[in-house]
Amino acid sequence: MTATERDAVAPPVPAAVECPLDEPTLDDLRRRTSVKWRAYPPDVLPLFVAEMDTPTAPFVADAVARALAIGDTGYDLGTTYAEALAPFAERRWGWTPDVASSRTLPDVMVAISEVLRVLTAPGDAVVVTPPVYPPFFAFPRNEGRHVLEAPLTADARLDLVTLADAFQRATCGGPGGGPGSGRRAVLLLCNPHNPTGTVHTRAELEAVLALADRYGVRVVADEIHAPFTFERVADGSAAFVPLLSVAGSERAVVVHSASKAFNLAGLRAAVALGGPGAAEDLRRIPELAGHAVNHLAVLAHAAAYTEGDAWLDALLGGVARNRALATRLLAEHAPAVRVQAAEATYLAWLDVRDALPDGVADAQAHGLVLERARVALGDGVPFGSGGTGRLRLNLATSPAILADGVRRLGAALAG
Amino acid sequence: MTATERDAVAPPVPAAVECPLDEPTLDDLRRRTSVKWRAYPPDVLPLFVAEMDTPTAPFVADAVARALAIGDTGYDLGTTYAEALAPFAERRWGWTPDVASSRTLPDVMVAISEVLRVLTAPGDAVVVTPPVYPPFFAFPRNEGRHVLEAPLTADARLDLVTLADAFQRATCGGPGGGPGSGRRAVLLLCNPHNPTGTVHTRAELEAVLALADRYGVRVVADEIHAPFTFERVADGSAAFVPLLSVAGSERAVVVHSASKAFNLAGLRAAVALGGPGAAEDLRRIPELAGHAVNHLAVLAHAAAYTEGDAWLDALLGGVARNRALATRLLAEHAPAVRVQAAEATYLAWLDVRDALPDGVADAQAHGLVLERARVALGDGVPFGSGGTGRLRLNLATSPAILADGVRRLGAALAG
Repeated sequence: MTATERDAVAPPVPAAVECPLDEPTLDDLRRRTSVKWRAYPPDVLPLFVAEMDTPTAPFVADAVARALAIGDTGYDLGTTYAEALAPFAERRWGWTPDVASSRTLPDVMVAISEVLRVLTAPGDAVVVTPPVYPPFFAFPRNEGRHVLEAPLTADARLDLVTLADAFQRATCGGPGGGPGSGRRAVLLLCNPHNPTGTVHTRAELEAVLALADRYGVRVVADEIHAPFTFERVADGSAAFVPLLSVAGSERAVVVHSASKAFNLAGLRAAVALGGPGAAEDLRRIPELAGHAVNHLAVLAHAAAYTEGDAWLDALLGGVARNRALATRLLAEHAPAVRVQAAEATYLAWLDVRDALPDGVADAQAHGLVLERARVALGDGVPFGSGGTGRLRLNLATSPAILADGVRRLGAALAG
Repeated sequence: MTATERDAVAPPVPAAVECPLDEPTLDDLRRRTSVKWRAYPPDVLPLFVAEMDTPTAPFVADAVARALAIGDTGYDLGTTYAEALAPFAERRWGWTPDVASSRTLPDVMVAISEVLRVLTAPGDAVVVTPPVYPPFFAFPRNEGRHVLEAPLTADARLDLVTLADAFQRATCGGPGGGPGSGRRAVLLLCNPHNPTGTVHTRAELEAVLALADRYGVRVVADEIHAPFTFERVADGSAAFVPLLSVAGSERAVVVHSASKAFNLAGLRAAVALGGPGAAEDLRRIPELAGHAVNHLAVLAHAAAYTEGDAWLDALLGGVARNRALATRLLAEHAPAVRVQAAEATYLAWLDVRDALPDGVADAQAHGLVLERARVALGDGVPFGSGGTGRLRLNLATSPAILADGVRRLGAALAG
């Protein structure tokens, strides 16, 4: 569980495969039956939900086929998931997860709900750092937890000032008051951060962990976007720092899944891992929480972690190129749109407030673009504070589709 | 949603395929990595958990392969699941589910938990009819509900006397007291019943619905074993009666899944359906409850419902033959074991109390058989009242493996 120096980690596997974003055509994609391709009428170009327009990774298809060939479709058991994640995490981030502490769970948000149920009680607070993935609001509220916002800074960094204020409110007593107050609280981080693509630095995470510890607040991080950090393809970007590799993370919990990086939302599974001081909390997650785990998904994710480096690197290269393409085309076709600089994720976070035609309210940005341009982007409003007037653009598509979408967006904003 | 006469339904599709139970050998099966094949050491013959030793049904493998070939691994959307179940339910049971009321959910027990959360509050009661599937105790308790037992009769039938008593306790006021008492309650049925294989009759279900209505108790049924009723292969067995086809079921809720009949525990999904008076309740299940649905599982289950009749009928024939084989071999090798007569499921419920060697307590039956015979059967104890001294035998294996297991069981009890 100790962090090893990044320099000691083997260099990235060279991209030996074609970028999987170049393959499917729009006609191919429209045969899919998932949310991205069925939520809107066929004349709408969908660049919203976090599905990628990649073909199924061949090692995933092979793993599923192998399992089906021997009828291996029963109940999941054991720590297969974490055992496959561990070497991947070591190779890519120099971090060795503690397999023994792991809990395999059906889904990242289900895992976070289970962790929140163990660490807090109804009425307790969950602090989130908006703008952030909308289920970070919905799932804690569904468990009767109170969601407190500690917005990111204008630069989309974690903000110790808003966090201290939220921790104070969450624990009803300021520093020292937490543990004695009878109120428990969790800080729910997104690391890397969806939608801004922020990669939290080691210094930031250390400071946040220390602050949380001062207030008795537990830290839980969704690290599903971790494979999508660009330091492997673009010099100067920050490397992903696993929360559990940071000093002071002994009681922290993280959740991982291969479903984002390998496009397996429809074959999902997740794993929760903890520092030594959280192992007992993870054990208290009831056994029934693992009941709905899909064994076939575990096998598919395990194959992705085990065999997916080259495919993932090729994909990261394509997403980095698409990010540059989108930025260039936006500057050309919609110069008033501000693009959040990102170090991770395949999502671009666009501030369109200064680009909206006169008389259009910030909150109407999504509807305006959908109506005028027939492009569906992610609406920023459900991402909480700092979301209104923003749109989330999914970059994980072919350059041709992306360029079409950005040009349409520019035309819609131009009026 | 009205029940149609069974006589009006087309006759069963003739079994055009080989019985899938005859295929895999023990060596094949031991390559599987699921609970059945990994929970015990390799010298133990596993005949416990509800996984079948069938190969993957070809139409399921094809559906998965088709989805993977076009990268259709994103988020699920809409009512695909219920749309596929509806014609299957019509063909096999003469019942037309109301697709519009349906909610696609990740798993049967997750679905039941969500329904319980809508229909009851923490502290309210959930009545179960033991001996019954152990998660019927664990999941309601995990939601803070109080589980009350209304045991089946000695013949494994629903018992109006124990039910009325439980309803009275559940609603704190006897007849008429339910709705006014501020306490809500649910009767959670297993239809057909796991582990006894009881198929509840229309008359029984009508009487139970009327009684529940009198106490203001809502009725929820897990119908996952419905495809496993033997009236299609053995004259005289009762036909499955869908709860929502019974008079008085307007406010009832049922949950279906193809995962049991087509062995897809590792690729799972489920659907909740309601009578007209429950549609609004189902709508109140939060959208996030569907977040963890596996789209690939939905596509696989839809293929099973659409293309699976002949495969299922061949399987039912094999299970019926295995049930007769097990009964015959038990009479020969362990005559003191009483086998519950069953009309459904691939599970045999064995009362071994009179067959245990002197000095062995009823609750030790499972351990004794495991230790002496190296056969893992399902332990009856967690099934609640009427479970102690019983063992659940999984019949969904090859006749050779089943015969070996039963002979070993006989030797353990004799020894």
